[in-house]
Amino acid sequence: MLYGDVKLYAGTACPDLSQGIAKYLNQPLCERDVIQFPNENLFVKLHTSVRGQDCYVIQTAAPPIHRNLMELLIMLQTLRLDSAARITAVIPYLWYGRSDKKDQPRIPITARLLADMIEVAGADRYITLDLHAGQIQGFFSIPGDVLTAFHTHVDYLESLLPDMVSPVVVTVDLGFAKKGRNYAARLNLPMAFIEKRRLRNDSNAQALTVIGDVAGRDVILVDDEVDTGGSVAQAVNLLKESGARNVYVVFVHPILSLNAAERLGALPVTQFVTTDTIPLPPEKAKFFGDRLKILSMAPLIGEVILRAHEGRSVGAMFNE
Amino acid sequence: MLYGDVKLYAGTACPDLSQGIAKYLNQPLCERDVIQFPNENLFVKLHTSVRGQDCYVIQTAAPPIHRNLMELLIMLQTLRLDSAARITAVIPYLWYGRSDKKDQPRIPITARLLADMIEVAGADRYITLDLHAGQIQGFFSIPGDVLTAFHTHVDYLESLLPDMVSPVVVTVDLGFAKKGRNYAARLNLPMAFIEKRRLRNDSNAQALTVIGDVAGRDVILVDDEVDTGGSVAQAVNLLKESGARNVYVVFVHPILSLNAAERLGALPVTQFVTTDTIPLPPEKAKFFGDRLKILSMAPLIGEVILRAHEGRSVGAMFNE
Amino acid sequence: MLYGDVKLYAGTACPDLSQGIAKYLNQPLCERDVIQFPNENLFVKLHTSVRGQDCYVIQTAAPPIHRNLMELLIMLQTLRLDSAARITAVIPYLWYGRSDKKDQPRIPITARLLADMIEVAGADRYITLDLHAGQIQGFFSIPGDVLTAFHTHVDYLESLLPDMVSPVVVTVDLGFAKKGRNYAARLNLPMAFIEKRRLRNDSNAQALTVIGDVAGRDVILVDDEVDTGGSVAQAVNLLKESGARNVYVVFVHPILSLNAAERLGALPVTQFVTTDTIPLPPEKAKFFGDRLKILSMAPLIGEVILRAHEGRSVGAMFNE
Amino acid sequence: MLYGDVKLYAGTACPDLSQGIAKYLNQPLCERDVIQFPNENLFVKLHTSVRGQDCYVIQTAAPPIHRNLMELLIMLQTLRLDSAARITAVIPYLWYGRSDKKDQPRIPITARLLADMIEVAGADRYITLDLHAGQIQGFFSIPGDVLTAFHTHVDYLESLLPDMVSPVVVTVDLGFAKKGRNYAARLNLPMAFIEKRRLRNDSNAQALTVIGDVAGRDVILVDDEVDTGGSVAQAVNLLKESGARNVYVVFVHPILSLNAAERLGALPVTQFVTTDTIPLPPEKAKFFGDRLKILSMAPLIGEVILRAHEGRSVGAMFNE
Amino acid sequence: MLYGDVKLYAGTACPDLSQGIAKYLNQPLCERDVIQFPNENLFVKLHTSVRGQDCYVIQTAAPPIHRNLMELLIMLQTLRLDSAARITAVIPYLWYGRSDKKDQPRIPITARLLADMIEVAGADRYITLDLHAGQIQGFFSIPGDVLTAFHTHVDYLESLLPDMVSPVVVTVDLGFAKKGRNYAARLNLPMAFIEKRRLRNDSNAQALTVIGDVAGRDVILVDDEVDTGGSVAQAVNLLKESGARNVYVVFVHPILSLNAAERLGALPVTQFVTTDTIPLPPEKAKFFGDRLKILSMAPLIGEVILRAHEGRSVGAMFNE
Amino acid sequence: MLYGDVKLYAGTACPDLSQGIAKYLNQPLCERDVIQFPNENLFVKLHTSVRGQDCYVIQTAAPPIHRNLMELLIMLQTLRLDSAARITAVIPYLWYGRSDKKDQPRIPITARLLADMIEVAGADRYITLDLHAGQIQGFFSIPGDVLTAFHTHVDYLESLLPDMVSPVVVTVDLGFAKKGRNYAARLNLPMAFIEKRRLRNDSNAQALTVIGDVAGRDVILVDDEVDTGGSVAQAVNLLKESGARNVYVVFVHPILSLNAAERLGALPVTQFVTTDTIPLPPEKAKFFGDRLKILSMAPLIGEVILRAHEGRSVGAMFNE
Repeated sequence: MLYGDVKLYAGTACPDLSQGIAKYLNQPLCERDVIQFPNENLFVKLHTSVRGQDCYVIQTAAPPIHRNLMELLIMLQTLRLDSAARITAVIPYLWYGRSDKKDQPRIPITARLLADMIEVAGADRYITLDLHAGQIQGFFSIPGDVLTAFHTHVDYLESLLPDMVSPVVVTVDLGFAKKGRNYAARLNLPMAFIEKRRLRNDSNAQALTVIGDVAGRDVILVDDEVDTGGSVAQAVNLLKESGARNVYVVFVHPILSLNAAERLGALPVTQFVTTDTIPLPPEKAKFFGDRLKILSMAPLIGEVILRAHEGRSVGAMFNE
Repeated sequence: MLYGDVKLYAGTACPDLSQGIAKYLNQPLCERDVIQFPNENLFVKLHTSVRGQDCYVIQTAAPPIHRNLMELLIMLQTLRLDSAARITAVIPYLWYGRSDKKDQPRIPITARLLADMIEVAGADRYITLDLHAGQIQGFFSIPGDVLTAFHTHVDYLESLLPDMVSPVVVTVDLGFAKKGRNYAARLNLPMAFIEKRRLRNDSNAQALTVIGDVAGRDVILVDDEVDTGGSVAQAVNLLKESGARNVYVVFVHPILSLNAAERLGALPVTQFVTTDTIPLPPEKAKFFGDRLKILSMAPLIGEVILRAHEGRSVGAMFNE
Repeated sequence: MLYGDVKLYAGTACPDLSQGIAKYLNQPLCERDVIQFPNENLFVKLHTSVRGQDCYVIQTAAPPIHRNLMELLIMLQTLRLDSAARITAVIPYLWYGRSDKKDQPRIPITARLLADMIEVAGADRYITLDLHAGQIQGFFSIPGDVLTAFHTHVDYLESLLPDMVSPVVVTVDLGFAKKGRNYAARLNLPMAFIEKRRLRNDSNAQALTVIGDVAGRDVILVDDEVDTGGSVAQAVNLLKESGARNVYVVFVHPILSLNAAERLGALPVTQFVTTDTIPLPPEKAKFFGDRLKILSMAPLIGEVILRAHEGRSVGAMFNE
Repeated sequence: MLYGDVKLYAGTACPDLSQGIAKYLNQPLCERDVIQFPNENLFVKLHTSVRGQDCYVIQTAAPPIHRNLMELLIMLQTLRLDSAARITAVIPYLWYGRSDKKDQPRIPITARLLADMIEVAGADRYITLDLHAGQIQGFFSIPGDVLTAFHTHVDYLESLLPDMVSPVVVTVDLGFAKKGRNYAARLNLPMAFIEKRRLRNDSNAQALTVIGDVAGRDVILVDDEVDTGGSVAQAVNLLKESGARNVYVVFVHPILSLNAAERLGALPVTQFVTTDTIPLPPEKAKFFGDRLKILSMAPLIGEVILRAHEGRSVGAMFNE
Repeated sequence: MLYGDVKLYAGTACPDLSQGIAKYLNQPLCERDVIQFPNENLFVKLHTSVRGQDCYVIQTAAPPIHRNLMELLIMLQTLRLDSAARITAVIPYLWYGRSDKKDQPRIPITARLLADMIEVAGADRYITLDLHAGQIQGFFSIPGDVLTAFHTHVDYLESLLPDMVSPVVVTVDLGFAKKGRNYAARLNLPMAFIEKRRLRNDSNAQALTVIGDVAGRDVILVDDEVDTGGSVAQAVNLLKESGARNVYVVFVHPILSLNAAERLGALPVTQFVTTDTIPLPPEKAKFFGDRLKILSMAPLIGEVILRAHEGRSVGAMFNE
Repeated sequence: MLYGDVKLYAGTACPDLSQGIAKYLNQPLCERDVIQFPNENLFVKLHTSVRGQDCYVIQTAAPPIHRNLMELLIMLQTLRLDSAARITAVIPYLWYGRSDKKDQPRIPITARLLADMIEVAGADRYITLDLHAGQIQGFFSIPGDVLTAFHTHVDYLESLLPDMVSPVVVTVDLGFAKKGRNYAARLNLPMAFIEKRRLRNDSNAQALTVIGDVAGRDVILVDDEVDTGGSVAQAVNLLKESGARNVYVVFVHPILSLNAAERLGALPVTQFVTTDTIPLPPEKAKFFGDRLKILSMAPLIGEVILRAHEGRSVGAMFNE
């Protein structure tokens, strides 16, 4: 045992996933108070000491995102001040991943700010899933394990392939082109792309084009996260107009803000495949009916915590 | 000009105070976009460059407090990444000031975390008002100006003294005893205290005592901030029961969470004296009617920004 | 064993307390040379290696305070450079605790400087007792255990209570009002306060007032530390003038600089209750005769070192 | 003048570009010795003092890349130790940009290491061009200006468009798809992609596909850098096989290692358009004959240095 | 003016040298209180604000050395917290310069600790004279100017040369051999050395040898500092026994601890040449009579402060 | 086992010494890929995970020195990002040790830059041999073990003494005088020195003098490293001219750049005694024939790794 025992702490943002991880590890979540005072101030108290223990704090960027971020940071500091031996922030969906570069002047790189905040609060390591850009790992000075739902997605999609007709992988966004290629390569399928271009004289109007061949084919439409669902809706409609047969929408992080769930639920999509990195409340889930497949990340995260604790390779899980 | 020109930026948490400061300095607030996306993510864009300028970001811990904190941090980082020469965080009411020590085990010192976050985001200096404990200055590595509404309060109270009968200064809380003494000393008045003690076998029941003489006297009840108003209400009632004549309630930061405004408005209080470090919306202000006196901190903060920029003494404002 | 074995090192400032701690832990202090050269330079050499060990350096702010501070810092660096696994600075009485905030412009916050120096020298953790302000914990980036003589004091005072007449708790200084309240609450006694106010036209003259009821009562006068004894002497005399019966003076840190011991010894005080965080030489102790009760902090500090080493809760010692 | 005068220093890696920048700024490069001793150790000596000056060190990742990196770092430290007021590392082509994420376990993120090294050596800011991934900006704690050859490229390409037939923009690599879209959007052209996929049972064999329509069209093939030229050669050949008419190869950083120049020179390409971020020696340039168009980045970098020095907006150069 | 105006602050350790520097700069030392409380705690208060100014704090390692060190550190922090634009620690004789390496295991490198403390207190730069080892510059992260009395010494010695007979330069210690060579080279004189070797079976007994030719010659005996004077006394006696004619003892830092002044005064030395980096009290000076030549470093330090402030070269003072 | 198991990694700069260390420790070097791409970029991949292990990376400053430095830094970062428990850089010959102070203005202290780079890359500790100046230890913030070939050299020289005639120890350079004294003291031999002085009007011409007695004696000429061999050649010739009998040249680090091996091989030297901190290729070794004695440092380094891992004293190896 390198750093004492595993101590699992959960914030309040993803209780089911946290329980799932605890169950995988066959140990309960540690008791702690998280109190929100009338002035919105959060207060944390651990029920037992963590001196010399190997602590993991599970918290995700679900709404209200800033309150939940602060909850994570306070928990990290509390563990540090109680002399934990090692503290790992377990963040299924990281805050502000899309603010990862200055592609125009005088704007922030908020994802770097996040990394700085997590470090200054006291994390020694982090575990997260499917960063918007893999380079965000380099924003951290501390080491981390960046996991992916890719293998879980691919395994599931392979089970659907026998029923598909001339399937093709399509990416919603060109920024996801290279990762989309990985899906296509692993599933041994061809690809197509959707190009979205802002029209010159009207900042709101966009021209959408399918590049590649989709007519008469089943389409596996992949992306890393779905927020308002606008791009997905445009893509699905364009694909259908272009003659696509069944459309499967596959993504990791179900943000589904505003009326995204309702909007997506109304689309001519055969199945939505996602994960539980962000909890999906029943009032949103209902719009999808039985077309929604949520693949739990709990076993993956649990196994990585176990290996990190025992000093075993995480890469070996994927023959890497 | 040591660090370029003064550039004033305001977050969205205290627009009136920010405008007041800008007016005092006779220059407009700088243009910037603050956008909140459907996924709650905040985005900031400065309209003009701040390279080599002396920048001030005004933002206060008004609700929603965590969102507003993040807005401040993002603005600080944005200014830093645009190569501002010097960045000062102007925080009329600082977040989490009451979480300033570990008075029980396994809890955070969130105010220190705040200082760390403000520094890591990029502030070179800070300006704030009436910290819950003066020691919080020592949580920062960067220099700062910690101002106080004390002089403004005292000047105002002196104008009321001629109409008072045997006035006495009383503190709501023993933790404010020493600062209360400063009010009494400057106004040349006697003091009394309210002691609040948790009863042994019932964690909610409290015994309240007045220590000192209040019967037949006008009372100036002082505190640093009022949150739910519970302690103030108890104190006022106890003072009245103890024979106090008119009661004036004086405090710096009007948090007034939950139904505090309504609760306070219903008390037998002659006047409430506070400041604009936190904006008081009309729907709360209405409960006080004309018994509410808000003393603006804009001239004080504005003057300090001016002196900080020009390299002149702030202490000299108060003959210190 | 998380960080090797416990290695106890002592500076030269509090040899008896250091031996007491070693005795509690049933292990000897580690051998080391501490040499002072003719040019006042200090030199430290450890007799055996501390590679991978859990090291504790005991040193207190006894005079000559700056020499003793440097001795601590050099020992910390020596342990660090010899690759100790974990280094804890054990500081029964911390240097410069009263310089903890800027209550006037253009002055230092020396306690923060102390924290920075201790960290830069190489401490990973610290243990100290009864900080002048609990907020000083927030000056450190490293975790620490801030202990208190409160429980030891209270236990002892409870043994005296049966012989007291209408006892009341009084604080020497309003800055200690809230901590004084804790004594009163735990002993289930009423309180009174002494207010000290500088007179307007004479910076040396002070007006002293007792607020609350002391006539005919035994008084427990509490404070955190006693330096020159001036405030205590004023307080005792005022209490006596106000009709107090027996006076017990209770404080944690016996600085007793200049002729404080002689001055206090001459006061009409029934008993002085203090601790051994600072050694009291016989030439000072003699002024108190048998009215002096020194409660040793060695068992408390020893137990905390033990628990810190074994990763057990310190808070549990006090049912917290 | 915010930080003294501009002082331009050049390493030895890109003398022509450095002179071009100096010429644009109408001031000479500062005199300094750069000596390489027989033991390969580098030594730098500045001829005049830079105390209080605004210093810029121009050095690019040309071969021998590690020696040139060390030269930059030593120059940065030398300027820092001589008390320069501000130091900007001007790096037309940054080292190790392609090692920007851990896409497999147990590998480095060398670009982050680079950022750390540049900061620890003493840079206060950096200026660079066309990072392999924009996110690398987030690897730096210091602010920087990340410029791009995009506008220069596009201006030049627009001059060629009238002579092209049904032009289409194609990206060599899917990782460049989104940036390629920017070229297409600005030039108002359609797009196509080349997908490269490793074949299952042979790690060297690759399947290349054109996705989109290129037959009978002139192709503008875009990428950020060209190293050995292998991917470009494959792409050009595939495009030709797919019926492309003229092919224009456009890229920013001409690494052209091994026999890349010879290999590219032999391709059926109408024109190669690149920049001078890496010097192209005559023995390589000769293979391209008059089909090579090098667009100098000196005016762009020079203008940015000027604006950074004077505190004016860089974004304004591009109406951003 | 890059960083505001020069503000000179002096600690209490070398008042005459500080005044000499002030006089050279034609401006007074800034007013400040330095108070030592009965508990030995030091307190500093600046009389006027230093916001945006270029501040210099002059303090030397004279006894009591640890108190004076703390005085320097507190002054640095005070200036920093008052938002000085730049702070330079001016340290004529640096603390703990002889503890600069681990030449045996389990000892400190106290000079590095000193550098860390000076930086953490807030110095942006430092100025010092004749470090025990030039490498100590590398202990600092901040830039500094390390001056030397060498040129002043040499100029003075050249004035004595006409009266000397076959002069030879001798170093007291082999560790000073290379610096001694510089004296010999500049004065165009031959050298000799004194080798001191501990005898095998007696740790106190030492064998002293002169290596080189001194018989019938005048000797210039050089060293960097003289502490108890033991080595110098041994060297002078040995030289005399070896037939040396007149002996001149030349050194930079007159520590002269214990009875060094008396011991040296009794030696057959023609003249002692030193500096005022450490004040020499009359009760020590009297032992030397008129054989003592103190060369003031005030003009040198003053000129360097001037040049540092104005951004001019310090090296140019010595044609370097 | 404090930090997991020992994992030995070797860079490519000193394969034989690395294997020797591995053999001493009776465990193989860990498998890793070190690839150099055509663009000179280095890439490292560890074959197995190092989570929680005690890792040692062996790499020396052999040519190409900058490439090999980068290889070390990348390996350190890779280990850190894979969550190694502790990382020790084992550097038999440290880069840039001679650039350790600013002995003229406007030059770097590159050895400090090296220390900063090694720390920022991720080393927790370092092990090295015979630094050019012991003070370089103080450039590191991390602890380290600085070993020496001194004991190995001395043991070997003692075996030669019986055959020598009136041996005397001579140092090539006055900067090595004090360390040379250690050889003389341990071997109980007299000393002499060679003084090298630049002639006034010709920067290349040097005057060389022997100080002390060498005629008719065997000479042990000692230095820390030999680069081009110029100084050694001058020294040997001067010694011979001065009547020396046999000359033994003893040094730690065999840099032997340019034609040093050939030049030294031609000298009238009886034996060259050095170590394997830098590999000596056969094409250089051949010039020495059987007059070359290479003493391996592998057992020394291996033993220190073992003791560092087990938490045992390194000093005890030398009775210190």
